[in-house]
Amino acid sequence: MSLLDETIAAIRPADPGAVAEARAHQDRLTKPRGSLGVLEEVAVRLAGSAGTGLPPMPEPAALAIFAGDHGVHARGVSPWPQEVTTQMVANFTAGGAVANAFAAQVGASVTVVDVGVAADLAPAPGLLLRKVAHGTADLSSGPAMTVQQAVAALETGISVAAELIGGGARCLITGDMGIANTTASAALVCAYTGADPAVATGRGTGIDDPTHTRKIATVREALRVNALVPPAGDGVQDGLRVLAAVGGLEHAAIAGFILGGAAARVPVLLDGVIAGSAALAAAALAPAAVDHCVAGHRSVEPGHRLALDHLGLRPLVDLELRLGEGTGGLLAHPLVCAAVRVMHEVATFDSAGVTEKES
Amino acid sequence: MSLLDETIAAIRPADPGAVAEARAHQDRLTKPRGSLGVLEEVAVRLAGSAGTGLPPMPEPAALAIFAGDHGVHARGVSPWPQEVTTQMVANFTAGGAVANAFAAQVGASVTVVDVGVAADLAPAPGLLLRKVAHGTADLSSGPAMTVQQAVAALETGISVAAELIGGGARCLITGDMGIANTTASAALVCAYTGADPAVATGRGTGIDDPTHTRKIATVREALRVNALVPPAGDGVQDGLRVLAAVGGLEHAAIAGFILGGAAARVPVLLDGVIAGSAALAAAALAPAAVDHCVAGHRSVEPGHRLALDHLGLRPLVDLELRLGEGTGGLLAHPLVCAAVRVMHEVATFDSAGVTEKES
Repeated sequence: MSLLDETIAAIRPADPGAVAEARAHQDRLTKPRGSLGVLEEVAVRLAGSAGTGLPPMPEPAALAIFAGDHGVHARGVSPWPQEVTTQMVANFTAGGAVANAFAAQVGASVTVVDVGVAADLAPAPGLLLRKVAHGTADLSSGPAMTVQQAVAALETGISVAAELIGGGARCLITGDMGIANTTASAALVCAYTGADPAVATGRGTGIDDPTHTRKIATVREALRVNALVPPAGDGVQDGLRVLAAVGGLEHAAIAGFILGGAAARVPVLLDGVIAGSAALAAAALAPAAVDHCVAGHRSVEPGHRLALDHLGLRPLVDLELRLGEGTGGLLAHPLVCAAVRVMHEVATFDSAGVTEKES
Repeated sequence: MSLLDETIAAIRPADPGAVAEARAHQDRLTKPRGSLGVLEEVAVRLAGSAGTGLPPMPEPAALAIFAGDHGVHARGVSPWPQEVTTQMVANFTAGGAVANAFAAQVGASVTVVDVGVAADLAPAPGLLLRKVAHGTADLSSGPAMTVQQAVAALETGISVAAELIGGGARCLITGDMGIANTTASAALVCAYTGADPAVATGRGTGIDDPTHTRKIATVREALRVNALVPPAGDGVQDGLRVLAAVGGLEHAAIAGFILGGAAARVPVLLDGVIAGSAALAAAALAPAAVDHCVAGHRSVEPGHRLALDHLGLRPLVDLELRLGEGTGGLLAHPLVCAAVRVMHEVATFDSAGVTEKES
C-alpha cells in the first residue's frame, strides 16, 4: 500500500464511548450545565478524537505553513505579484510575519514547507524543501496538477504531520502561503459542495470589482474545462480527481497534513478558506478525518462558510480575518487548550462541596 | 477630593495622535491592509488608551473576581441557593473553578474580593476581605444599596485595580460571583439604556419559564419602585443613583475597577453581562473610561448585547458562554496580546523586502 492508502486506512471516526464519558464528566464540574457553550463541545470532540474520555492537552502545537504557486495567477486574479510567495517564505523563516508573532504568543513552533513554490528556494532554518512542482498549471485551461502530483503533495503533508508529531506536537495547525490560492480554494469549494462560483468566490486579500468579476469567471471556466459540474461524487478516486484538477500543491499538502493528524488521533486546528477547502478534499478521501478537526476561525471569504457548513464545523474565532498563513488557527489554539484544561483541572460539585441548583 | 472623584478626574479619553500613529504603522506591516480585521482595531484602541503609538504588551494580566450577594435572591429569581456564592469563593481560592483553569491557561493571576458576600468569610490565600455590606437589599422593594455603600464598593474596585497595577499587572480582567446577579445586571441595563425588562432579562445560568417570567416582573418592579423609568440622564449623580438603586456590590466594585484601570491607562478586559452592566455605570460616571475597555466576549444574556451596543464595544469571543467569573475575559486575553504583539514584532514591507500589491 502507498503511504496515502495506509494513512486513509488508519483513520477512525470519533470514539462514541469516549464522547459519552467526556460529556458526563462535563456535567459533574462546578459550573452550570452547558455554561461553557461551544467550548464544551470542543472538549468532547477532542475526547472522541483521542479515543479517551479525558483528552490529552493539545500542547505543544506545531504550525506548518505549506507554500505553493498557481498557474492561474497569470489570469490576473490577484493584485499581488507571484514573487510575493517567495518573499513571504523568507519573511516566515526570518520570523517577521504575523504568523510568527501569533505563534510566539501561543507557544507554537513554525515549520515552512516548500511544496510547490515557482522559484527555487535556498535552504533556511525552519524551511523544509519538499517541492513537488514549480507551481501548478492554470486550472482554468485544464487540470492544475496530475493525479500523481496531487498524491505526492498529499504524501508530503502526511510526512510533515508525522515528523511534527514525532517531534512532540500534540496539536497540528494548518498554514498556507500562495499568491492566488483563494482562486483555487473557491474552485475546490464549488467542486466539492456544488456551490455556484458567484457565491463561493471572494475578494481574497483585497481585490477590486473588475478583478473579482474576472476571478468568478475564471473559477466557472475551471469547473467547465475540468468537467466538474455537477460536483464530484464521494470516494477516493473522485476526491483525487477534483483535487488535482483545481487544487493547489499547498491545498493537497494540507489535505495530507489533516489525514496524517487524523490517523495519529492528534487534533488538527484548521485555519481559513485554504484549510477549509483542503479539508473538503481530506473528507472526500476519508470522511472520518473531519472528526479530528477543529475549525479555528471563519474568514471573510464566502467559500469558507460554505466549506465549514459542508463539513459540519463551527469556527471558534470570527474576527473578520483574511490573512491566511495559519493566523486564525493559531488564535484559536488557546481556546482549544482552555476547553480541554477544564476537563483536567476543574473540581466537581462533590469534590468542591458546592451545592447543585434545585431541579 | 474623594478617591472616586480623584479617579474620575484622572481619566483621559483615547489619544488621537497615538491612534493615528498606530493605524499608520499597521498599514506598513507585511500583511494586506485590514487583513487582521477586528484585531487591528484592538491594537489601535490600546494605543489610544496607552497614549503611545506602540502600545505596551498587555501582559501580565490580573483577574479580579468580585463577589457579592443579592437581597433580590429571596424573590425566587435563581434556582441556585445563595450559599453557592460562598462555596464558589472557596472553590476559586482552592483553584478548582473554571476561572482558575482559564487563568492558568493564559498566565493570569487570580484575586478574589469579598465586597459583599452575605456570609462572613475566613481568610484564604488570594482572597481580599473588603466587605462593604452583607449583601444588598431587595432591589425590587427599594434601593439595593445606599449611595454611600455604592461609593464604598466603587472605591474598593479602584483600590484593587491600583494594587494589581502596582504589583505589575498590565491588563485588568473583570470577574464576578454572586447568585442572582444577572437580575441586578438586567435592571442596570434597563435603567442606563432604556431597554424594556422583557428584552433585557435573560435566563442567567439556566432557569425555567416560570422563573424567567418572575425575573422579568421583578426587574420591572425594581425600575418602578426606584423611579428609574424613563432611564437616568448622564452625570455622576444620576449614575450613582442608578447604581445604588438596582446594582450589586460586585457591580459597583467592577465599575470602580474599570475606572481605576482607565485612570492608570491600563486596559480593562471586560467579561460578560455583569461587567457590561457595570461598564454602563462606569461610563455614566466617566464616559472616557470606555476608551480603556475591551469587550472580551458576548454572553448569551440578551442584556449583554444591549450593554455592548450602548457602549460601542465589539466582543472578541462569541461562543455562547454564560458562566461569568471572568471566563470570557480570560479567553480573550491571548487575542488581545496577539493583536498588540503584531505591532511589536511584524516586519514592514520595506524591512522585509516584500513587494506591495499593485494599486
